[in-house]
Amino acid sequence: MDEFQLIRHYFAGLTAGSEGVLLGIGDDAALLSVPAGHELVVTTDTLVAGRHFPGQTRPFDIGWKALAVNLSDLAAMGATPRWFTLALTLPEQNADWLAGFSEGLKALADLHGVALVGGDTTRGPLAITITAMGLVQPDRAMRRDGAVQGNLICVTGTLGDAALALQQLLATGLPSSLSSFPRGRESSSGSGVQASKLDSRLRGNDSQAHIDPALLQRLNRPRPRAEAGQILGEWGMAAIDLSDGLAGDLNHILIASQVGAELRAETLPQSTAFARAAPADALALQLHGGDDYELCVCLRGEDFQAAEPKLAALGVPLTRIGVITAEPGLRLREGATVRAIEPRGYQHFEAA
Amino acid sequence: MDEFQLIRHYFAGLTAGSEGVLLGIGDDAALLSVPAGHELVVTTDTLVAGRHFPGQTRPFDIGWKALAVNLSDLAAMGATPRWFTLALTLPEQNADWLAGFSEGLKALADLHGVALVGGDTTRGPLAITITAMGLVQPDRAMRRDGAVQGNLICVTGTLGDAALALQQLLATGLPSSLSSFPRGRESSSGSGVQASKLDSRLRGNDSQAHIDPALLQRLNRPRPRAEAGQILGEWGMAAIDLSDGLAGDLNHILIASQVGAELRAETLPQSTAFARAAPADALALQLHGGDDYELCVCLRGEDFQAAEPKLAALGVPLTRIGVITAEPGLRLREGATVRAIEPRGYQHFEAA
Repeated sequence: MDEFQLIRHYFAGLTAGSEGVLLGIGDDAALLSVPAGHELVVTTDTLVAGRHFPGQTRPFDIGWKALAVNLSDLAAMGATPRWFTLALTLPEQNADWLAGFSEGLKALADLHGVALVGGDTTRGPLAITITAMGLVQPDRAMRRDGAVQGNLICVTGTLGDAALALQQLLATGLPSSLSSFPRGRESSSGSGVQASKLDSRLRGNDSQAHIDPALLQRLNRPRPRAEAGQILGEWGMAAIDLSDGLAGDLNHILIASQVGAELRAETLPQSTAFARAAPADALALQLHGGDDYELCVCLRGEDFQAAEPKLAALGVPLTRIGVITAEPGLRLREGATVRAIEPRGYQHFEAA
Repeated sequence: MDEFQLIRHYFAGLTAGSEGVLLGIGDDAALLSVPAGHELVVTTDTLVAGRHFPGQTRPFDIGWKALAVNLSDLAAMGATPRWFTLALTLPEQNADWLAGFSEGLKALADLHGVALVGGDTTRGPLAITITAMGLVQPDRAMRRDGAVQGNLICVTGTLGDAALALQQLLATGLPSSLSSFPRGRESSSGSGVQASKLDSRLRGNDSQAHIDPALLQRLNRPRPRAEAGQILGEWGMAAIDLSDGLAGDLNHILIASQVGAELRAETLPQSTAFARAAPADALALQLHGGDDYELCVCLRGEDFQAAEPKLAALGVPLTRIGVITAEPGLRLREGATVRAIEPRGYQHFEAA
C-alpha cells in the first residue's frame, strides 16, 4: 500500500460522524460549515513517543490519548467538539500498529461525534499532532483571564490518578523510552534490549499487569470532560484543563487574571483507587502530577450551587478546592497552616 | 527560558495580522469568527527534516516553506487564508534557529495576512506541522472531483524549477540528511562529519552558492498562489496544488473526477532559469518533480479566456497544458506521438 491507500484504509472509518462536513478528507483541504451564532474554537497538541507516553503504551491507547488531550482543551473553552486533523509521523508502515491506533482514535471520536477532516502521514520518529476544532456560543467561551477575587476554584473528577499510574509503571523498571513501535536501525542502537525479548514483554504488557486498572485507565484513556465543559460554560468565569498538573495549570489562570489562589489540601478529590493505594506523596501527585485531563474552573459561589447538580447528573463530581484571592501567588492551606506552593507544572516523565 | 516563554518570545509577532481572531494564542484554544456566507477550509501538512527539505536548509526557509505548503493547499480550494496553528518538535532550544525560523514564518504570514492562533512545542527530532484555515464562498470552492471531458488543463507559473534546484543541490554532495540544527547525542553519532567543520560549511551555505538563485528561491521559498486561487475559484471546475509533481497530482483529479487527460509536452511552462539550465531530464523534472506549489486547474475553454488576463494582471501566467478526456489514464503528446505516462508522484529526495 502506498501512502494514500494507507490513509484511506485505516482512517476511512473516522471521516464520518460529525455535522457540518461539506467535504472531508481526500481533497486539498476540508470544507466545513460553521453555523451562524457560533465561534470556531481551535487547539493543537503533539504527542511524542517516549515523552508524552511511555514507550510500551498500546497503539489503541496512543490513538485515544492523542485525540483526548485535544478534546480536553476544547472542553476547557466550553466548546462542543466537531472536527479534527491528524498529522502522523511513523518510522515505517506497520499494519498492526495502524489498526490499533486508528481503532483507539475512532473509539473516542465516536464517543464525541467528531470527524477526521484532514491528515498527513510522514516517515520519521513516532509523533502525533492533532488539531481539534469545535463550536461555542460567544457568551459561553471560558477563557483564562476572567477569574476574580472570591471565585470558587473547582475541579471535575479526581486528581492524581494518572500520575500515580505512571509512577507505578515506571517503578516496574521497563525502560520508558522503549517504544512498542518496531525499531528502525537508528533507534534500536543502544537500547540494550534484545528485540525478541522486548517484543514478548510488550505483547504481554507485563509491566501494566500489577497496576490498578482504574488508575491505568486514567493514564491511558483519559475521558475529556466535553459535556461538563459545555455545561460549565454557562457560569465559568475562567477555566483550564489539567494536563500538566493542578498547580502549574491553575497558575496560568492566576497570571492571566492577575489574581492569586488559596487551595485547601484536604479538599483535593481522590478516586477510590487512589485513596486505596494511599501513596506517600499523594499531595505532590495531586498538585503537580500531569495527565489528569480534568477541568479546573472558577465560579461564583451561587453558580457553583447551580452547576454542581447538573454535572452530578452526568456522573461528573464538581469539587470546591479553594478560592481566588486578590493577593497574587498560589498558596496551600493544610489544617491551620498556609504555605506558598510552587506553581511548577508537570515535568514530562523522562525528566522526572 | 521555559517552554511558555520560548513560545511567547519568538512567536509573539505572528499572532496579529488577521481578521476574526477573538482570542489568539495563549489560552486552551483560540476563538475565531467565521463570517456568515463563508465556508471554513482546513488543511494540514507536516515537514520532517531530511525528508521534506535538505538538512542544510536555512531556518528562515524552513519556516517559510512549512507555512507555504499549507497556504498552497488553501489556494487550490480557492480559499482566502486566515489563520494557522503550529506544532513544532525541536531537538533542543536554540535561539538562533528559532529566531530564523520564526522570521521566515512571519515573512510569509505577513504577505498573506494570516495569524498564528495556536501552537505546541515539544522536544524530539525536528518536525513542523501546520494546520491552516481559510474562508471561501460556497460557490467558489474548487474540489478535485469536478473536471469534465473537454476542460482545459491549466497551470499557474512554471514547472520543474524546484526539482532542478534540488537535483543540483544534491549533486554538490553535501549529505542531505545533515541538519543545520545543532546535533544531539543521538543524531550526531555516525554522521562522520566533525561538528565544527559542518557548522562552517552550513554557515557559508557553500552548497547553494553555485545554483541559480532563481531556481533555489523556488525550492526554498515557494510562493503559494493564494490570490490566483481566489480568482480561479470563479471558474475552476477542479483544482489541486502541485506539491508532489504534475503527473501524480493531476492524477488525483482524474481519479476523483473519473476522467482522463492528455498533456502536450511542448506546452509545459519553463522559467527562464530552467530553460537556460536546459537539464537533460527536463521533461521528467516537469512531470514528476515535486515542490512546484503551482495550481493545476481545469477550466472550460471560454472561462480560460476570462481567467488568463486576470491572472496576468497579478503577474501570474496561466498556461494551457492539456485537455480532460473521457478515456481514463494520463497520456502525453510529444509532436505526433502519444504515450501513456505513469502518474507517479514525487519520491521524497532521500529515496530519489
